[in-house]
Amino acid sequence: MALPVGVTEEQFNTAIEKFKAAVGAEWVFTEEEDVVLYRDAYSPMYDEDSELMASAAVAPASVEEVQEIVRIANELRIPIYPISTGMNLGYGGSAPILNNSVVVDLKRMNKIIEVDDVRHFAIVEPGVSYFDLYRYIVEHDLDVWIDCPDPGWGSIVGNALDHGVGYTWGHYRDHFRAHSGLEAVLANGELLRTGMGALPGAKTWGEFHYGFGPQVDSLFAQGNAGIVTKMGIHLMPRPETYRSGQVTVPRRADINALVRIVNDLEDQGLVGMPRYSSPMNAVRDEGLSALVNAPDGWDGDAIDAWAQEHGHMYWGVLLQFYGPERTTLATWEYAKEKIAAAIPGAVFEDRELYKMPMTDEQMHNADHRVSLGIPQLEIFSIGARTATNPTPRDGHLWFAAVIPRSGEGVLEAQEVMAKAFREAGMPPMFGPFSTPATWMYHTFIFITGFPVVKGNAEVARQNREGFSRIIEIARQHGYGEYRAPPAFVDEIAGAYNFNDNALLRLNETIKDAIDPNGIIAAGRGGIWPKHLRKS
Amino acid sequence: MALPVGVTEEQFNTAIEKFKAAVGAEWVFTEEEDVVLYRDAYSPMYDEDSELMASAAVAPASVEEVQEIVRIANELRIPIYPISTGMNLGYGGSAPILNNSVVVDLKRMNKIIEVDDVRHFAIVEPGVSYFDLYRYIVEHDLDVWIDCPDPGWGSIVGNALDHGVGYTWGHYRDHFRAHSGLEAVLANGELLRTGMGALPGAKTWGEFHYGFGPQVDSLFAQGNAGIVTKMGIHLMPRPETYRSGQVTVPRRADINALVRIVNDLEDQGLVGMPRYSSPMNAVRDEGLSALVNAPDGWDGDAIDAWAQEHGHMYWGVLLQFYGPERTTLATWEYAKEKIAAAIPGAVFEDRELYKMPMTDEQMHNADHRVSLGIPQLEIFSIGARTATNPTPRDGHLWFAAVIPRSGEGVLEAQEVMAKAFREAGMPPMFGPFSTPATWMYHTFIFITGFPVVKGNAEVARQNREGFSRIIEIARQHGYGEYRAPPAFVDEIAGAYNFNDNALLRLNETIKDAIDPNGIIAAGRGGIWPKHLRKS
Repeated sequence: MALPVGVTEEQFNTAIEKFKAAVGAEWVFTEEEDVVLYRDAYSPMYDEDSELMASAAVAPASVEEVQEIVRIANELRIPIYPISTGMNLGYGGSAPILNNSVVVDLKRMNKIIEVDDVRHFAIVEPGVSYFDLYRYIVEHDLDVWIDCPDPGWGSIVGNALDHGVGYTWGHYRDHFRAHSGLEAVLANGELLRTGMGALPGAKTWGEFHYGFGPQVDSLFAQGNAGIVTKMGIHLMPRPETYRSGQVTVPRRADINALVRIVNDLEDQGLVGMPRYSSPMNAVRDEGLSALVNAPDGWDGDAIDAWAQEHGHMYWGVLLQFYGPERTTLATWEYAKEKIAAAIPGAVFEDRELYKMPMTDEQMHNADHRVSLGIPQLEIFSIGARTATNPTPRDGHLWFAAVIPRSGEGVLEAQEVMAKAFREAGMPPMFGPFSTPATWMYHTFIFITGFPVVKGNAEVARQNREGFSRIIEIARQHGYGEYRAPPAFVDEIAGAYNFNDNALLRLNETIKDAIDPNGIIAAGRGGIWPKHLRKS
Repeated sequence: MALPVGVTEEQFNTAIEKFKAAVGAEWVFTEEEDVVLYRDAYSPMYDEDSELMASAAVAPASVEEVQEIVRIANELRIPIYPISTGMNLGYGGSAPILNNSVVVDLKRMNKIIEVDDVRHFAIVEPGVSYFDLYRYIVEHDLDVWIDCPDPGWGSIVGNALDHGVGYTWGHYRDHFRAHSGLEAVLANGELLRTGMGALPGAKTWGEFHYGFGPQVDSLFAQGNAGIVTKMGIHLMPRPETYRSGQVTVPRRADINALVRIVNDLEDQGLVGMPRYSSPMNAVRDEGLSALVNAPDGWDGDAIDAWAQEHGHMYWGVLLQFYGPERTTLATWEYAKEKIAAAIPGAVFEDRELYKMPMTDEQMHNADHRVSLGIPQLEIFSIGARTATNPTPRDGHLWFAAVIPRSGEGVLEAQEVMAKAFREAGMPPMFGPFSTPATWMYHTFIFITGFPVVKGNAEVARQNREGFSRIIEIARQHGYGEYRAPPAFVDEIAGAYNFNDNALLRLNETIKDAIDPNGIIAAGRGGIWPKHLRKS
């Protein structure tokens, strides 16, 4: 049996027996056939000795059982790693960050406690998935939408705690920011409620996120302050209509005006998530390839000239409007006018228009259902086996760097990141047609799925080294990642090192004070307990 | 000389000399004529022995000077109380919570570091007021608006750190939520940057609020984790137009449908801050007065019947629209249709319509300039001497309780709060026509200014006891305050006592770890250092 570092077999076995007494033997998993289910299917060290694994798992059914688990772990110094539904593929799945931790699997705690479609919030347990809440809302015919990330099987609580994102409106798709209040079990086994939940009898837990005094909630997100057992989340009222319109603009330099105008629209709340793209990505031409893949980097002007000469548009953005039909139409017309005035040659195309509630057929045929608050699993078509992709890769690691939200910022990030891949000796994953992801409100993120290769330790090692190298080069240019695969959490956190890691040291000071034995989610957010700290 | 508790005269004098060496003698204030300027003009203990006072003040000009002050305070155990511009009237002004603390006055640190009108943020020091930033934006002709609270002399940083609010769009008027990253001096004198500011060279400090790992920023708001020396804040793009429309509805029960529809509009981002009112407040009639002031509480149905009989409308709400002219018109028409369909007898009136930029005359004549992002001091007309108010009161304490955001919530809060005032033996400040403040997004707040009386200790004492009693009765009904005058901070924080004050205990644990000598802002957020803790 693999044991967590510093834990004796006797300690471990005692803990397992106590866990069994606390939650019932059938909810404590120690057999390999069970524990293997907590592996990270996309681990960059898959099947290697260094793969991060759970030693066991325990699945409580109630807050009291979570408290009991934490008390046992504290007493016996067992590192535990809480997961909600345990998805989070590309960022570690359900495997712990500290090898051989005991996973605390919260999927049995799946109560939808309250959904209010006048005040627009839900209060849920960590085991509630987007599918679960969606089904509940449909069954009860409630006038609210959820904002979902790509995979609908994820946990609403877990996604928010990972700083996860969705696809609708700015202040709903930043899922942690859309939360309102939480309940958590602290490392000492105590139960905490934040926001208005701290005031017994308050009916406003899901509405007013601050309560009184400093808000501690954010210590639990991408952190390891405790185990969250309930959370409130703001929901979007079901709009009258959804409308989308595609904008394309001809020149490389048009990105500056395009981003400026779209930022204006979005920050006034006139559009939901803008979806940038480049039609150039679809162009297959040897001359263009030669320009793009020039060994010392591309010449943007030359590519621009090529595109003009061959009549290709350079950038696109899909604008998405939520609201009354006439409002969305007026805003779309306004967007066209603004863009047409600033960008000669811009082309506009009406796309989808749905009146709510949508018919089943409309939902089935919709272009991008998560933009309509409908949870999906269709993201898993990424990298799937197809005619043009006969040997799909084994998984991916997300690299997701925050860049400035301007056209200049995009053009610079393209060059920096392409150069980074060249320097790291990796095939390029960013190029002159790369566009930012815009899930996180007010923020551009350059994201790519690094390939995970299983069964070839040498290629896997090269990929890992490449990933590290890319993190480092990005850091040198002021780009940091917003989220981290566990194997790289220290490197990613380490880039946020202003004043000799002042932020990390504050986090460590807090961790030591509230979890002195360092039992909860060691390593999460780059924060290790004292006895495991490297420096 | 009045000394802070536990500090000897020698310690204190040594500290003063060291402060002088650190910032220059002219920026350390110990003479009564100077220190008196830090009194809370609205103190509920004004001129009484128990009035909370500064013992001295020190005004640093730089981050390094703040660090030096903190190190001196730490060495000599001097309690310090940071203020930004030191306004915050009705919630304590610039006086400390712990009597005889040394005020650290940050008003000299007033640099506007960056304003970006493409990416829509500013980065400012704590001494920058709304007036300052407004002037800067006008002078540089930038396409951004600020969201300001009522008094424009307040600090952008300070207001955000007090969970202050403004008047425009939901996600701008919650000022702390609109922040992005901060710099702070910790109790150990170390300098911290959060969010992307923790990554040296990042250009996205004012854009992406999380950075990586747990976000510690909120520990500094309504808390005492350190002294904030810089902060990023999201700004709203200047809209094409501002439009407002008044809705009035006839019946008391119409509040339910009205709030439901306005919540829908607001949570879809279609309107800015809704301004609820009741035309009944302006009705002067003895019969009505008798109904309202019935000794055991009013009969809502009887008042409703009286209003119907006399042809008065019961509720009003001003809807405010920001955006393109046609969008705002379409949304206003939509709002009318929705409300007319749900509430027979609803009346609609077009109010203001301004195309940006406004003329000076328009700005001068506008109904409510803070809704247009124009900082003011006109709030101070509240309670001023007028023909009908010949003996204005001496100040006010804000009582501001969070209630559910529904019509039922409003009607219940009216009764609960009116009863609370009767039980406390106070003149009623809430009645059957009271409507909620809606500054804080997703939240209704019942607010009233409790009179501050100077020069009559007995009346002042009665008022203080009344205030305490109201807090307690509100608590029993699940209502808690979102902000606290210093004299009542423990009572207000004490209502958030779930699980034997688990939240307070967590905050105390963190405080002890990061400020072991308890020097910074003792008592803020109800959090006291160990040596001053009551229990």
